[in-house]
Amino acid sequence: MTQCGCFITIEGLEGAGKSSCLSQIERLLRDRGLDPLLTREPGGTPLGEAVRGLLLAPAHHGMSAEAETLLLFAARAQHLEQVIRPALQAGRPVVCDRFTDATYAYQGGGRQLGEARIAVLEDWVQQGLQPDLTLYLDVPPRLGLERARQRSAPDRFEQERLEFFERARAVYLRRAERFPVRMKVIDASRPLAEVQAEIAAVITRMLDDGLD
Amino acid sequence: MTQCGCFITIEGLEGAGKSSCLSQIERLLRDRGLDPLLTREPGGTPLGEAVRGLLLAPAHHGMSAEAETLLLFAARAQHLEQVIRPALQAGRPVVCDRFTDATYAYQGGGRQLGEARIAVLEDWVQQGLQPDLTLYLDVPPRLGLERARQRSAPDRFEQERLEFFERARAVYLRRAERFPVRMKVIDASRPLAEVQAEIAAVITRMLDDGLD
Repeated sequence: MTQCGCFITIEGLEGAGKSSCLSQIERLLRDRGLDPLLTREPGGTPLGEAVRGLLLAPAHHGMSAEAETLLLFAARAQHLEQVIRPALQAGRPVVCDRFTDATYAYQGGGRQLGEARIAVLEDWVQQGLQPDLTLYLDVPPRLGLERARQRSAPDRFEQERLEFFERARAVYLRRAERFPVRMKVIDASRPLAEVQAEIAAVITRMLDDGLD
Repeated sequence: MTQCGCFITIEGLEGAGKSSCLSQIERLLRDRGLDPLLTREPGGTPLGEAVRGLLLAPAHHGMSAEAETLLLFAARAQHLEQVIRPALQAGRPVVCDRFTDATYAYQGGGRQLGEARIAVLEDWVQQGLQPDLTLYLDVPPRLGLERARQRSAPDRFEQERLEFFERARAVYLRRAERFPVRMKVIDASRPLAEVQAEIAAVITRMLDDGLD
Protein backbone atom coordinates (compact mmCIF):
# COMPACT_ATOMS: atom_id res chain seq x y z
CA MET A 1 0.00 0.00 0.00
CA THR A 2 1.14 3.53 -0.81
CA GLN A 3 2.62 5.42 2.15
CA CYS A 4 2.21 9.06 3.09
CA GLY A 5 2.79 9.97 6.74
CA CYS A 6 1.05 13.30 6.36
CA PHE A 7 -0.96 14.95 9.11
CA ILE A 8 -4.11 16.76 7.93
CA THR A 9 -6.39 18.68 10.28
CA ILE A 10 -9.90 20.04 9.63
CA GLU A 11 -10.95 23.13 11.52
CA GLY A 12 -14.11 25.17 11.67
CA LEU A 13 -16.83 26.48 13.93
CA GLU A 14 -19.91 24.46 14.81
CA GLY A 15 -21.95 23.77 11.64
CA ALA A 16 -19.11 24.55 9.22
CA GLY A 17 -19.44 21.11 7.62
CA LYS A 18 -16.38 19.37 9.04
CA SER A 19 -17.95 15.90 9.06
CA SER A 20 -18.73 15.74 5.35
CA CYS A 21 -15.30 17.26 4.59
CA LEU A 22 -13.72 14.49 6.66
CA SER A 23 -15.53 11.71 4.73
CA GLN A 24 -14.61 13.36 1.44
CA ILE A 25 -10.92 13.51 2.34
CA GLU A 26 -11.04 9.87 3.43
CA ARG A 27 -12.42 8.90 -0.01
CA LEU A 28 -9.85 11.01 -1.84
CA LEU A 29 -6.99 9.39 0.07
CA ARG A 30 -8.35 5.86 -0.40
CA ASP A 31 -8.71 6.52 -4.13
CA ARG A 32 -4.96 7.16 -4.16
CA GLY A 33 -4.25 3.82 -2.46
CA LEU A 34 -3.67 5.30 0.99
CA ASP A 35 -5.06 3.96 4.29
CA PRO A 36 -5.96 7.07 6.29
CA LEU A 37 -6.57 7.09 10.03
CA LEU A 38 -9.56 9.29 10.88
CA THR A 39 -9.68 10.69 14.38
CA ARG A 40 -10.94 13.68 16.33
CA GLU A 41 -10.18 16.08 19.15
CA PRO A 42 -10.90 16.25 21.93
CA GLY A 43 -10.96 12.47 21.90
CA GLY A 44 -9.31 9.84 19.78
CA THR A 45 -8.32 7.60 22.71
CA PRO A 46 -10.36 6.10 25.59
CA LEU A 47 -8.81 8.70 27.94
CA GLY A 48 -9.42 11.49 25.42
CA GLU A 49 -13.04 10.50 24.95
CA ALA A 50 -13.52 10.51 28.74
CA VAL A 51 -12.00 14.00 28.85
CA ARG A 52 -14.27 15.03 25.95
CA GLY A 53 -17.24 13.95 28.07
CA LEU A 54 -16.10 16.28 30.88
CA LEU A 55 -15.50 19.15 28.44
CA LEU A 56 -18.85 19.02 26.66
CA ALA A 57 -21.14 18.25 29.63
CA PRO A 58 -23.37 21.27 30.28
CA ALA A 59 -23.13 20.32 34.00
CA HIS A 60 -19.55 21.66 34.11
CA HIS A 61 -20.66 25.23 33.31
CA GLY A 62 -18.36 26.64 36.03
CA MET A 63 -15.21 25.20 34.42
CA SER A 64 -12.36 27.74 34.40
CA ALA A 65 -10.79 28.63 31.05
CA GLU A 66 -7.44 27.39 32.37
CA ALA A 67 -8.83 24.01 33.45
CA GLU A 68 -10.59 23.61 30.11
CA THR A 69 -7.40 24.35 28.18
CA LEU A 70 -5.30 21.97 30.26
CA LEU A 71 -7.87 19.20 29.80
CA LEU A 72 -7.73 19.71 26.03
CA PHE A 73 -3.95 19.44 26.03
CA ALA A 74 -4.08 16.38 28.32
CA ALA A 75 -6.32 14.62 25.79
CA ARG A 76 -4.00 15.83 22.99
CA ALA A 77 -0.85 14.50 24.71
CA GLN A 78 -2.43 11.06 24.98
CA HIS A 79 -3.71 11.23 21.40
CA LEU A 80 -0.27 12.14 20.06
CA GLU A 81 1.53 9.41 21.98
CA GLN A 82 -0.97 6.62 21.50
CA VAL A 83 -2.46 7.32 18.05
CA ILE A 84 -1.11 10.15 15.90
CA ARG A 85 2.67 9.73 16.16
CA PRO A 86 2.56 5.91 15.76
CA ALA A 87 0.32 6.21 12.65
CA LEU A 88 2.53 8.87 11.04
CA GLN A 89 5.63 6.80 11.79
CA ALA A 90 3.95 3.80 10.14
CA GLY A 91 3.40 5.90 7.00
CA ARG A 92 -0.36 6.32 7.37
CA PRO A 93 -2.00 9.69 6.69
CA VAL A 94 -3.81 11.01 9.77
CA VAL A 95 -6.91 13.14 9.29
CA CYS A 96 -8.00 14.82 12.50
CA ASP A 97 -11.26 16.67 13.16
CA ARG A 98 -9.89 19.71 15.06
CA PHE A 99 -6.45 20.12 16.60
CA THR A 100 -4.47 22.91 18.27
CA ASP A 101 -5.73 25.71 16.00
CA ALA A 102 -9.10 25.07 17.66
CA THR A 103 -7.55 25.66 21.09
CA TYR A 104 -6.09 28.96 19.87
CA ALA A 105 -9.52 29.91 18.47
CA TYR A 106 -11.83 28.74 21.26
CA GLN A 107 -9.73 29.11 24.40
CA GLY A 108 -7.23 31.75 23.23
CA GLY A 109 -9.89 33.81 21.41
CA GLY A 110 -13.34 32.71 22.59
CA ARG A 111 -12.37 32.45 26.27
CA GLN A 112 -9.84 35.29 25.89
CA LEU A 113 -6.91 33.45 27.47
CA GLY A 114 -4.70 34.95 24.78
CA GLU A 115 -2.62 33.20 22.15
CA ALA A 116 0.67 33.45 24.09
CA ARG A 117 -0.61 31.23 26.90
CA ILE A 118 -1.82 28.62 24.39
CA ALA A 119 1.60 28.66 22.73
CA VAL A 120 3.29 27.65 26.02
CA LEU A 121 1.18 24.50 26.25
CA GLU A 122 1.48 23.79 22.51
CA ASP A 123 5.28 23.74 22.89
CA TRP A 124 5.07 21.65 26.07
CA VAL A 125 2.91 18.97 24.44
CA GLN A 126 3.83 18.96 20.74
CA GLN A 127 7.54 19.78 20.93
CA GLY A 128 7.48 21.11 17.41
CA LEU A 129 5.03 18.71 15.76
CA GLN A 130 2.60 20.58 13.45
CA PRO A 131 0.01 19.45 10.90
CA ASP A 132 1.25 19.36 7.30
CA LEU A 133 -2.06 20.73 6.04
CA THR A 134 -4.99 22.38 7.79
CA LEU A 135 -8.30 23.04 6.05
CA TYR A 136 -10.19 25.78 7.83
CA LEU A 137 -13.86 25.75 6.81
CA ASP A 138 -14.94 29.33 7.30
CA VAL A 139 -18.58 30.22 7.99
CA PRO A 140 -20.14 33.26 9.65
CA PRO A 141 -20.91 32.07 13.21
CA ARG A 142 -24.62 32.88 12.89
CA LEU A 143 -24.97 30.53 9.91
CA GLY A 144 -22.90 27.76 11.51
CA LEU A 145 -24.83 27.86 14.77
CA GLU A 146 -28.16 27.73 12.94
CA ARG A 147 -27.00 24.59 11.15
CA ALA A 148 -25.65 23.04 14.37
CA ARG A 149 -28.82 23.75 16.36
CA GLN A 150 -30.99 21.94 13.82
CA ARG A 151 -28.87 18.88 14.49
CA SER A 152 -28.87 18.26 18.27
CA ALA A 153 -29.18 19.79 21.74
CA PRO A 154 -26.43 22.36 22.33
CA ASP A 155 -23.34 21.18 24.24
CA ARG A 156 -21.41 23.41 26.67
CA PHE A 157 -19.66 25.23 23.80
CA GLU A 158 -22.72 25.63 21.59
CA GLN A 159 -24.39 27.38 24.53
CA GLU A 160 -21.90 30.26 24.22
CA ARG A 161 -22.97 33.64 22.89
CA LEU A 162 -22.34 34.81 19.35
CA GLU A 163 -19.42 37.06 20.36
CA PHE A 164 -17.55 34.00 21.62
CA PHE A 165 -17.68 32.48 18.12
CA GLU A 166 -16.85 35.80 16.45
CA ARG A 167 -13.66 35.95 18.53
CA ALA A 168 -12.86 32.31 17.68
CA ARG A 169 -13.36 32.97 13.97
CA ALA A 170 -11.11 36.03 14.09
CA VAL A 171 -8.30 33.90 15.56
CA TYR A 172 -8.75 31.21 12.89
CA LEU A 173 -8.54 33.83 10.12
CA ARG A 174 -5.51 35.49 11.73
CA ARG A 175 -3.70 32.16 11.98
CA ALA A 176 -4.51 31.33 8.35
CA GLU A 177 -2.84 34.62 7.37
CA ARG A 178 0.16 33.84 9.55
CA PHE A 179 0.59 30.25 8.27
CA PRO A 180 -0.42 30.51 4.61
CA VAL A 181 1.43 27.37 3.50
CA ARG A 182 -0.08 25.07 6.11
CA MET A 183 -3.58 26.58 6.49
CA LYS A 184 -6.08 26.88 3.65
CA VAL A 185 -9.25 28.89 4.20
CA ILE A 186 -12.27 27.29 2.49
CA ASP A 187 -15.37 29.49 2.24
CA ALA A 188 -17.90 26.98 3.58
CA SER A 189 -20.92 29.27 3.28
CA ARG A 190 -21.08 28.35 -0.44
CA PRO A 191 -23.09 25.42 -1.85
CA LEU A 192 -21.66 22.03 -0.85
CA ALA A 193 -20.60 21.11 -4.43
CA GLU A 194 -18.35 24.20 -4.64
CA VAL A 195 -16.87 23.55 -1.21
CA GLN A 196 -16.13 19.93 -2.14
CA ALA A 197 -14.55 20.92 -5.44
CA GLU A 198 -12.14 23.23 -3.61
CA ILE A 199 -11.31 20.60 -0.99
CA ALA A 200 -10.63 18.05 -3.76
CA ALA A 201 -8.32 20.51 -5.49
CA VAL A 202 -6.33 21.21 -2.31
CA ILE A 203 -5.95 17.52 -1.39
CA THR A 204 -5.01 16.52 -4.94
CA ARG A 205 -2.37 19.24 -5.07
CA MET A 206 -0.95 18.07 -1.74
CA LEU A 207 -0.74 14.46 -2.91
CA ASP A 208 0.76 15.43 -6.27
CA ASP A 209 3.38 17.51 -4.50
CA GLY A 210 4.17 14.40 -2.38
CA LEU A 211 3.98 16.27 0.89
CA ASP A 212 5.59 13.49 2.89
CA MET B 1 -14.15 34.47 64.06
CA THR B 2 -10.36 34.81 63.91
CA GLN B 3 -8.96 35.17 60.39
CA CYS B 4 -5.84 33.67 58.88
CA GLY B 5 -5.74 33.28 55.10
CA CYS B 6 -2.86 30.85 55.24
CA PHE B 7 -2.37 28.00 52.81
CA ILE B 8 -1.03 24.77 54.35
CA THR B 9 -0.27 21.66 52.31
CA ILE B 10 0.45 18.13 53.53
CA GLU B 11 2.71 15.97 51.40
CA GLY B 12 3.95 12.42 51.63
CA LEU B 13 4.08 9.08 49.92
CA GLU B 14 1.29 6.53 50.24
CA GLY B 15 1.00 5.36 53.86
CA ALA B 16 2.91 8.31 55.34
CA GLY B 17 -0.03 9.19 57.60
CA LYS B 18 -1.38 12.27 55.82
CA SER B 19 -5.02 11.66 56.85
CA SER B 20 -4.42 11.69 60.60
CA CYS B 21 -2.08 14.67 60.17
CA LEU B 22 -4.88 16.50 58.36
CA SER B 23 -7.41 15.86 61.16
CA GLN B 24 -4.87 16.93 63.74
CA ILE B 25 -4.18 20.22 61.96
CA GLU B 26 -7.91 20.83 61.66
CA ARG B 27 -8.28 20.43 65.45
CA LEU B 28 -5.30 22.68 66.17
CA LEU B 29 -6.70 25.45 63.95
CA ARG B 30 -10.22 25.15 65.40
CA ASP B 31 -8.77 25.36 68.91
CA ARG B 32 -7.38 28.75 67.91
CA GLY B 33 -10.79 29.96 66.74
CA LEU B 34 -10.10 29.45 63.04
CA ASP B 35 -12.47 27.86 60.50
CA PRO B 36 -10.19 25.82 58.22
CA LEU B 37 -11.21 24.54 54.81
CA LEU B 38 -9.97 20.97 54.29
CA THR B 39 -9.50 19.82 50.75
CA ARG B 40 -7.41 17.49 48.63
CA GLU B 41 -5.66 17.04 45.31
CA PRO B 42 -6.32 15.78 42.82
CA GLY B 43 -9.91 16.72 43.57
CA GLY B 44 -11.55 19.37 45.71
CA THR B 45 -14.18 20.31 43.08
CA PRO B 46 -16.73 18.22 41.12
CA LEU B 47 -14.53 18.56 38.02
CA GLY B 48 -11.39 17.74 40.03
CA GLU B 49 -12.97 14.66 41.54
CA ALA B 50 -13.97 13.47 38.05
CA VAL B 51 -10.37 13.99 36.93
CA ARG B 52 -9.16 12.12 40.04
CA GLY B 53 -11.33 9.20 38.93
CA LEU B 54 -9.56 9.15 35.56
CA LEU B 55 -6.13 9.43 37.18
CA LEU B 56 -6.51 6.64 39.72
CA ALA B 57 -8.43 4.12 37.60
CA PRO B 58 -6.19 1.09 36.95
CA ALA B 59 -7.96 0.85 33.54
CA HIS B 60 -5.97 3.88 32.31
CA HIS B 61 -2.63 2.07 32.65
CA GLY B 62 -1.46 3.37 29.25
CA MET B 63 -1.78 7.02 30.25
CA SER B 64 1.21 9.06 29.10
CA ALA B 65 3.20 10.96 31.74
CA GLU B 66 2.39 14.20 29.91
CA ALA B 67 -1.37 13.55 29.85
CA GLU B 68 -1.28 12.62 33.54
CA THR B 69 0.55 15.82 34.45
CA LEU B 70 -1.78 18.03 32.42
CA LEU B 71 -4.82 16.38 34.01
CA LEU B 72 -3.39 17.11 37.46
CA PHE B 73 -2.86 20.76 36.60
CA ALA B 74 -6.35 20.99 35.04
CA ALA B 75 -7.86 19.80 38.31
CA ARG B 76 -5.55 22.22 40.16
CA ALA B 77 -6.56 25.22 38.03
CA GLN B 78 -10.23 24.55 38.82
CA HIS B 79 -9.45 23.98 42.50
CA LEU B 80 -7.54 27.26 42.77
CA GLU B 81 -10.23 29.32 41.03
CA GLN B 82 -13.28 27.75 42.63
CA VAL B 83 -12.09 26.83 46.13
CA ILE B 84 -8.60 27.78 47.28
CA ARG B 85 -8.27 31.44 46.21
CA PRO B 86 -11.82 32.39 47.35
CA ALA B 87 -11.24 30.78 50.79
CA LEU B 88 -7.87 32.49 51.28
CA GLN B 89 -9.37 35.83 50.21
CA ALA B 90 -12.16 35.32 52.75
CA GLY B 91 -9.53 34.87 55.48
CA ARG B 92 -9.99 31.13 55.95
CA PRO B 93 -6.99 28.83 56.36
CA VAL B 94 -6.86 26.19 53.62
CA VAL B 95 -5.37 22.78 54.44
CA CYS B 96 -4.78 20.71 51.34
CA ASP B 97 -3.88 17.03 51.16
CA ARG B 98 -1.18 17.17 48.43
CA PHE B 99 -0.44 20.03 46.03
CA THR B 100 2.21 20.86 43.44
CA ASP B 101 5.15 19.39 45.38
CA ALA B 102 3.44 16.04 44.74
CA THR B 103 3.49 16.69 40.99
CA TYR B 104 7.21 17.46 41.16
CA ALA B 105 7.73 14.25 43.14
CA TYR B 106 5.46 11.81 41.28
CA GLN B 107 5.50 13.11 37.71
CA GLY B 108 8.80 15.02 37.71
CA GLY B 109 10.64 12.34 39.71
CA GLY B 110 8.61 9.12 39.64
CA ARG B 111 7.65 9.41 35.97
CA GLN B 112 10.98 11.12 35.16
CA LEU B 113 9.46 14.09 33.28
CA GLY B 114 11.98 16.29 35.05
CA GLU B 115 11.39 19.22 37.35
CA ALA B 116 11.84 21.91 34.66
CA ARG B 117 8.79 20.74 32.71
CA ILE B 118 6.67 20.73 35.88
CA ALA B 119 7.83 24.28 36.62
CA VAL B 120 6.43 25.51 33.27
CA LEU B 121 2.95 24.27 34.17
CA GLU B 122 3.25 25.46 37.78
CA ASP B 123 3.89 29.01 36.52
CA TRP B 124 1.10 28.75 33.93
CA VAL B 125 -1.48 27.70 36.53
CA GLN B 126 -0.41 29.27 39.81
CA GLN B 127 1.08 32.53 38.57
CA GLY B 128 3.20 32.82 41.69
CA LEU B 129 0.83 31.41 44.31
CA GLN B 130 2.65 29.09 46.75
CA PRO B 131 1.67 27.41 50.02
CA ASP B 132 2.72 29.29 53.15
CA LEU B 133 3.61 26.05 54.89
CA THR B 134 4.15 22.51 53.63
CA LEU B 135 4.50 19.54 55.96
CA TYR B 136 6.27 16.71 54.22
CA LEU B 137 5.73 13.44 56.08
CA ASP B 138 8.77 11.39 55.21
CA VAL B 139 8.70 7.59 55.28
CA PRO B 140 10.85 5.02 53.50
CA PRO B 141 8.71 3.88 50.53
CA ARG B 142 8.77 0.23 51.59
CA LEU B 143 7.20 1.08 54.96
CA GLY B 144 4.62 3.44 53.47
CA LEU B 145 3.52 0.98 50.81
CA GLU B 146 3.15 -1.80 53.41
CA ARG B 147 0.86 0.44 55.44
CA ALA B 148 -1.13 1.50 52.32
CA ARG B 149 -1.59 -2.04 51.07
CA GLN B 150 -3.15 -3.17 54.35
CA ARG B 151 -5.80 -0.49 53.77
CA SER B 152 -7.27 -1.05 50.30
CA ALA B 153 -6.74 -2.41 46.78
CA PRO B 154 -3.86 -0.58 45.05
CA ASP B 155 -4.80 2.29 42.70
CA ARG B 156 -2.88 3.11 39.50
CA PHE B 157 -0.11 4.83 41.47
CA GLU B 158 0.18 2.25 44.24
CA GLN B 159 0.79 -0.36 41.52
CA GLU B 160 4.09 1.32 40.66
CA ARG B 161 7.41 -0.29 41.52
CA LEU B 162 9.50 0.66 44.51
CA GLU B 163 12.00 2.67 42.42
CA PHE B 164 9.16 4.99 41.34
CA PHE B 165 8.54 5.93 44.98
CA GLU B 166 12.26 6.18 45.76
CA ARG B 167 12.58 8.75 42.96
CA ALA B 168 9.52 10.62 44.26
CA ARG B 169 10.93 10.68 47.78
CA ALA B 170 14.27 12.00 46.54
CA VAL B 171 12.48 14.93 44.86
CA TYR B 172 10.48 15.69 48.02
CA LEU B 173 13.67 15.76 50.09
CA ARG B 174 15.51 17.90 47.52
CA ARG B 175 12.66 20.41 47.47
CA ALA B 176 12.59 20.56 51.27
CA GLU B 177 16.27 21.48 51.19
CA ARG B 178 15.65 24.11 48.54
CA PHE B 179 12.64 25.69 50.32
CA PRO B 180 13.58 25.35 54.03
CA VAL B 181 11.24 28.12 55.23
CA ARG B 182 8.11 26.78 53.53
CA MET B 183 8.75 23.02 53.75
CA LYS B 184 9.18 21.10 56.98
CA VAL B 185 10.30 17.49 56.86
CA ILE B 186 8.57 15.37 59.53
CA ASP B 187 10.06 11.92 60.10
CA ALA B 188 6.84 9.91 59.91
CA SER B 189 8.46 6.53 60.52
CA ARG B 190 8.45 7.32 64.26
CA PRO B 191 5.58 6.42 66.67
CA LEU B 192 2.43 8.46 66.03
CA ALA B 193 2.66 10.38 69.33
CA GLU B 194 6.09 11.75 68.40
CA VAL B 195 4.95 12.68 64.89
CA GLN B 196 1.92 14.47 66.28
CA ALA B 197 3.98 16.36 68.84
CA GLU B 198 6.22 17.70 66.09
CA ILE B 199 3.27 18.67 63.88
CA ALA B 200 1.66 20.49 66.82
CA ALA B 201 4.90 22.38 67.44
CA VAL B 202 5.21 23.47 63.80
CA ILE B 203 1.57 24.61 63.53
CA THR B 204 1.68 26.42 66.87
CA ARG B 205 4.84 28.24 65.83
CA MET B 206 3.22 29.27 62.53
CA LEU B 207 0.14 30.62 64.30
CA ASP B 208 2.17 32.42 66.93
CA ASP B 209 4.25 34.04 64.22
CA GLY B 210 0.95 35.18 62.60
CA LEU B 211 1.89 33.88 59.20
CA ASP B 212 -0.89 35.78 57.42
